[in-house]
Amino acid sequence: MKTNAGHFFEDFHVGQVIDHATPRTITEGDRALYGAIYPTRFALPSSAEFAASVGLAAHPVEELVGFHVAFGKTVPDVSLNAVANLGYAECRFHVPVVPGDTLRTRSEVIGVKENSNGRTGVVWVRSTATNQRGEVVVDWARWVMVHKRDAGAPAPATVVPDLAPAVAAADLVVPAGLDLTAYDTVAAGEPHRLGDYEVGERIDHVDGVTLTDAEHMMATRLWQNTAKVHFDTGARPDGTRLVYGGHVISLARALSFNGLANAQLVAAINAGAHVAPAFAGDTVHAWSEVLDQTELDAPGVGALRLRLVATKGRDESMTLRGDDRKYAPGVLLDLDYWALIPR
Amino acid sequence: MKTNAGHFFEDFHVGQVIDHATPRTITEGDRALYGAIYPTRFALPSSAEFAASVGLAAHPVEELVGFHVAFGKTVPDVSLNAVANLGYAECRFHVPVVPGDTLRTRSEVIGVKENSNGRTGVVWVRSTATNQRGEVVVDWARWVMVHKRDAGAPAPATVVPDLAPAVAAADLVVPAGLDLTAYDTVAAGEPHRLGDYEVGERIDHVDGVTLTDAEHMMATRLWQNTAKVHFDTGARPDGTRLVYGGHVISLARALSFNGLANAQLVAAINAGAHVAPAFAGDTVHAWSEVLDQTELDAPGVGALRLRLVATKGRDESMTLRGDDRKYAPGVLLDLDYWALIPR
Amino acid sequence: MKTNAGHFFEDFHVGQVIDHATPRTITEGDRALYGAIYPTRFALPSSAEFAASVGLAAHPVEELVGFHVAFGKTVPDVSLNAVANLGYAECRFHVPVVPGDTLRTRSEVIGVKENSNGRTGVVWVRSTATNQRGEVVVDWARWVMVHKRDAGAPAPATVVPDLAPAVAAADLVVPAGLDLTAYDTVAAGEPHRLGDYEVGERIDHVDGVTLTDAEHMMATRLWQNTAKVHFDTGARPDGTRLVYGGHVISLARALSFNGLANAQLVAAINAGAHVAPAFAGDTVHAWSEVLDQTELDAPGVGALRLRLVATKGRDESMTLRGDDRKYAPGVLLDLDYWALIPR
Repeated sequence: MKTNAGHFFEDFHVGQVIDHATPRTITEGDRALYGAIYPTRFALPSSAEFAASVGLAAHPVEELVGFHVAFGKTVPDVSLNAVANLGYAECRFHVPVVPGDTLRTRSEVIGVKENSNGRTGVVWVRSTATNQRGEVVVDWARWVMVHKRDAGAPAPATVVPDLAPAVAAADLVVPAGLDLTAYDTVAAGEPHRLGDYEVGERIDHVDGVTLTDAEHMMATRLWQNTAKVHFDTGARPDGTRLVYGGHVISLARALSFNGLANAQLVAAINAGAHVAPAFAGDTVHAWSEVLDQTELDAPGVGALRLRLVATKGRDESMTLRGDDRKYAPGVLLDLDYWALIPR
Repeated sequence: MKTNAGHFFEDFHVGQVIDHATPRTITEGDRALYGAIYPTRFALPSSAEFAASVGLAAHPVEELVGFHVAFGKTVPDVSLNAVANLGYAECRFHVPVVPGDTLRTRSEVIGVKENSNGRTGVVWVRSTATNQRGEVVVDWARWVMVHKRDAGAPAPATVVPDLAPAVAAADLVVPAGLDLTAYDTVAAGEPHRLGDYEVGERIDHVDGVTLTDAEHMMATRLWQNTAKVHFDTGARPDGTRLVYGGHVISLARALSFNGLANAQLVAAINAGAHVAPAFAGDTVHAWSEVLDQTELDAPGVGALRLRLVATKGRDESMTLRGDDRKYAPGVLLDLDYWALIPR
Repeated sequence: MKTNAGHFFEDFHVGQVIDHATPRTITEGDRALYGAIYPTRFALPSSAEFAASVGLAAHPVEELVGFHVAFGKTVPDVSLNAVANLGYAECRFHVPVVPGDTLRTRSEVIGVKENSNGRTGVVWVRSTATNQRGEVVVDWARWVMVHKRDAGAPAPATVVPDLAPAVAAADLVVPAGLDLTAYDTVAAGEPHRLGDYEVGERIDHVDGVTLTDAEHMMATRLWQNTAKVHFDTGARPDGTRLVYGGHVISLARALSFNGLANAQLVAAINAGAHVAPAFAGDTVHAWSEVLDQTELDAPGVGALRLRLVATKGRDESMTLRGDDRKYAPGVLLDLDYWALIPR
């Protein structure tokens, strides 16, 4: 059989390294499509002049472009037979991605744990994307629940990796040259700087976008993500096409411009949960909560730790969880990340 | 509150200057997306070789790309709370936009007039988009009806600007270097030159395009236009997504290739009315009327003043208005513009 | 009348040469859109680094991008009044297309044959697309059934060209510099080389894509293909938009990555039949049959002759024709082509 059947749980072992196909060159076409599919307006990826004005040597695309491309490469090897994408941790953005860069991704299996049902198991991988110079662009850990090929196969020794609940502020990478001391808030669209945000503050990003199948499929293909459920109405019993979770992340991040216009760069993703599936016809809104804030050791640069919540329909009460500690109805995404912002 | 609530009528005063966020760099990705979303085939923006053959130093994107990007920037500040976009005037295209250019837009309020109902008012703004060298790319006046925040706020002194009914031919800007003396009509697709068109002539552009939500949303996002009604099915009582008026302009202009293939460059927009809303499922056709024609002081260059009419469904009778002087049923757009064409 | 009514059967005569409008410059935006619309992952067009690693001086776009652009130019002149697109033959890809190249297409009429009904006829054309240096990019023959303008017009002398059933392996063009001796199968995604495929072998490419109107229209516009039936729900009695046959070709070719990841370059199209129409909502799957294989006179380069079959719904039995020799239900496309692959 020449086609890829994906890996099953018993195909993974701790220490295994997988070099993922296929390398992909980022272009200005990706920037344009990202801006056509998501309502992003962050000044730095929008404007080469703005990027130069804050000290960057070239004009990076949004960090999530690099993340999605890097992530997409892991799907055929890691999650083609996944039951669920369980979580992310320790995701850091290193060297910015600029048009002309070619990304490839390598993963190492860092944990395995068979489930008590004997039919599935959890696999932890740490993935690292590098550019054509071998520089790390982004790395992250994620864990997925994967089917066993054979329920009778013996369970491996359980290894559960020790993952940090959040990237420490001291571990955030500031792009080389970034200097926000002469930051232009007028061009950026809002006056709010690091010190204007308080821990615990919540921001309703107001706007909503109703999903279409054509748009989420185009985005997901752009990242060379091959999971059938996003493209083939025959892949799910109800004939719906499941929206790639990363589509909701990018959409919510773009919507967060309205209130967080100066949170220009994503520096790290601490944790993320795709709480509920999204489909064409759903209208996605977003709100954010400020979890932490800190100054960084780069001129004019601070960082906000934010919880970004995407919801189906607008929730002006911005409720994450009900009294039962379960996610409130309508919550689609709960993402914990660090963004760089001018002090 | 950190999010943008937009300006209300009483926030505008004559002489007020607004620098709009966010600067945006135009790329080859924008050209490709424009060609994917609109059936444009004008040889000059389609072909770098053709552009060079008519004397241009670089390969411009269509003028409407610059217009939409420049216009989109004004939406969050000028028309987020607009009831209606009432009109355009005195729009001139100056320096062509080429990939790599970064556009920003500044507006000045040039008129205000409270409506007799005391709840809304009309605001006139003149907007100017410049590139990274500070050269003017496009400027225009428009007027919008905007909600008052507080019906009890006192009415300002009425100032109604004096706007020209059309840009004078002598004020049209011909791009530096443009020389149409060796113009290749075979490559361009049609033999008709300036002298082949008669004032009063009407041209049925024949072809139609049925709108989809995915396409108009992608276009509108590309221009960073944030008006909710285009994206969120919850923003209008009937659950439809209103198509951005500029989408209809670009679609009609692209359809006009069939009969006006040599009307290569848009030089000015004299006036424009979005007569009726358009929605996914509508099939847009277009026809043009020649309003005026003139030779310009550049080698081989002439100009046609055209009325471009977009209709829902094809109207082979090309009727603009009924006996009652009202727009005929089905008319979506009535746009009066100048295009450059070989003599 | 200034608009293009297309050519009718009696407008064609053997030896007639048509220079098609409009030249079109290929950009990185086209590459990105191709990747957003089709689930392509072939390493060579995906990665500039991979292209360089196999000896190419620049980073070509997929061969089908050039084909679709070149083909689209012929539609207004050749097939605007076509009843049916009957076949392709002798299509060869010569110089690769890289961003910045400008393509134009010229056709010569090589055959005419009036049908016995007196109302239609078949026209054979050989079309050649060249780049801005005058180098041939792709050439092909195709034949279409075209309406007569006037059923009473006399029938021309019948000329039926002699077209090869397949491009001979010796006539395949290998791009200058291509050297697959150091080919990286890990980056490419699969280990299978020329010798791993057997004549007669069939490969089920597994994955499916459900079509949307927005996507096929965007693709078809990108190629400046103007046939009404793809865009206007009023053009067909049942209100459907017919999917451009080339969209199904590109989709099936992209799906064939899964099992043919190393069939990196399309070198020739021997024959092609659009067996049944496709519409939004259809789910397209694909399978391939190995028809022939050969080594070529370039380092490490071989060629596979493949039958690529697109189907509506997945056919795991991979049945091309029933016992009656007619195409099996569900077959959309039967394409016979040569691809270059490492030995």
